[in-house]
Amino acid sequence: MSLMIVGTMAFDALETPFGKVDRIIGGSATYAAWSASNFTQKIKQVSIIGGDFPQDEMDALAERGVSMEGVEVVKDGKSFFWSGRYHMDMNTRDTLVTELNVLEHFNPQLPDSYQDCEFLMLGNLAPAVQISVINQLKKRPKLIVMDTMNFWMDVALDELKKVMGMVDVLMVNDSEARQLSGEFSLVKAAAKIQQMGPKYLIIKKGEHGALLFSGKQVFFAPALPLEEVFDPTGAGDTFAGGFIGHIARTKDVSFENMKTGIIVGSAMASYCVEKFGPNRLKELTTDEIDARIDEFVELVNFDISIIS
Amino acid sequence: MSLMIVGTMAFDALETPFGKVDRIIGGSATYAAWSASNFTQKIKQVSIIGGDFPQDEMDALAERGVSMEGVEVVKDGKSFFWSGRYHMDMNTRDTLVTELNVLEHFNPQLPDSYQDCEFLMLGNLAPAVQISVINQLKKRPKLIVMDTMNFWMDVALDELKKVMGMVDVLMVNDSEARQLSGEFSLVKAAAKIQQMGPKYLIIKKGEHGALLFSGKQVFFAPALPLEEVFDPTGAGDTFAGGFIGHIARTKDVSFENMKTGIIVGSAMASYCVEKFGPNRLKELTTDEIDARIDEFVELVNFDISIIS
Repeated sequence: MSLMIVGTMAFDALETPFGKVDRIIGGSATYAAWSASNFTQKIKQVSIIGGDFPQDEMDALAERGVSMEGVEVVKDGKSFFWSGRYHMDMNTRDTLVTELNVLEHFNPQLPDSYQDCEFLMLGNLAPAVQISVINQLKKRPKLIVMDTMNFWMDVALDELKKVMGMVDVLMVNDSEARQLSGEFSLVKAAAKIQQMGPKYLIIKKGEHGALLFSGKQVFFAPALPLEEVFDPTGAGDTFAGGFIGHIARTKDVSFENMKTGIIVGSAMASYCVEKFGPNRLKELTTDEIDARIDEFVELVNFDISIIS
Repeated sequence: MSLMIVGTMAFDALETPFGKVDRIIGGSATYAAWSASNFTQKIKQVSIIGGDFPQDEMDALAERGVSMEGVEVVKDGKSFFWSGRYHMDMNTRDTLVTELNVLEHFNPQLPDSYQDCEFLMLGNLAPAVQISVINQLKKRPKLIVMDTMNFWMDVALDELKKVMGMVDVLMVNDSEARQLSGEFSLVKAAAKIQQMGPKYLIIKKGEHGALLFSGKQVFFAPALPLEEVFDPTGAGDTFAGGFIGHIARTKDVSFENMKTGIIVGSAMASYCVEKFGPNRLKELTTDEIDARIDEFVELVNFDISIIS
């Protein structure tokens, strides 16, 4: 039984108020796999890369227990490339360049060895690709989590709604939740989105934390107040990887355990933003992760016993 | 021993996406007193009003145990008036009208009966007025909390810094913390502001919650996700009233107890925004307050025991 992660493996060029990199490893599946591999070693990666993607990056993930059998390599193609510039608040960014390259013809074919998928993380991709992956699985996973973005709401809303009806957990940010639901209040937005299919909704609010909704239940996890957010690229994918990694480790898909998963994801994301790209994730130790989770406990822990 | 609240008692005219009122009771001391009076009945109010301020509003507060001896009535004067319009996100607003009226010559003289002040809440006012109040007290209160706003940073920074050196707790919002410190990171801003005097700093982030900093300690309280924020006016003052009311009730000025105070203040603020003006606060029951505090516990409570 394993965790399957579907998403991009790519190059990014980034500008933040703290620096600039011209070409660094990125992609939703890259961040998610690095993050999740701290919690489970049975990860099956699904992605597509060009001949330009470094072999040592593939090897490094493979050493963490991530199977690369489902990563299609287009030898004479170029990997997906994204370039963006962050504003001072780090919550808003301008896309400077998007080169789809090999991603334009991404039509993943799952290897047989991937059929044991118990937990499925669908990174932000065309809804049609997400649907195709689900449909290829002979046995429905215990939990399907999907990420998406406003772009697909603009250009592929019908397909997006279709895949939403097939998954358990949807992850979007606050403005996407508002766009998708047509409601400004996130409480109302969450209710409407759950009616579209997913029983669980995670709304990511960047530096303002994340909310988990299911029915009448709601849970809030703050983001850790940081001295410096160096580069927010991949923070959402790292969060997703930590969340699903924790679920895969515990094999517990209850609301209570998802709450813990969100804290784990938040802790991972708080590390991700400390350096450019996935660099900080690659060097993380278990002790560091535990210490960061303890910081979250301290951050929100209060005593109401003195209130009579 | 008592809690002294210093601030405005006023009229507001408000426009929100949900409605409009031309003239409603407002003012920082009004909201703070209504809020705090749920937790302590020894409140000494310090404010100034015109002959136009309704006697029944004064009587209603007096019935809650709030002494009006320190409220100066200028019979032929008009009460402070503020008019504003909220944007859809309810976090930003435009001031349409500010008529200082009697507030222009506010020079509070504390009655002798106010000298037993143990806890002092200085609402947002000219720093010179805040300093004058502190200086009139023969015995320093156990805890002095002050609120302020960006306006005083623009026009009276030196006096603001002086009063900051005399208080224990400063309350500001996130943009004010950034302006005051010149730091974008709230962690860095908090460190700098503490160097200016206050040992404790509370940064209010509206719908995104509140942070409490002291030295290396940090605590985060979320705002309750609400279906509707009807009118955010007075939410910050209601928060302050709940915070200091809880401190006065427990007579415990530790960081741990301030955390609980912030939850109590957040619960009160979440009720305040449900109706125009202080109307919701006036009808609140103890059971309702306890139920809302329980919601906060549920909202942030998670289990890490399953993480090995």
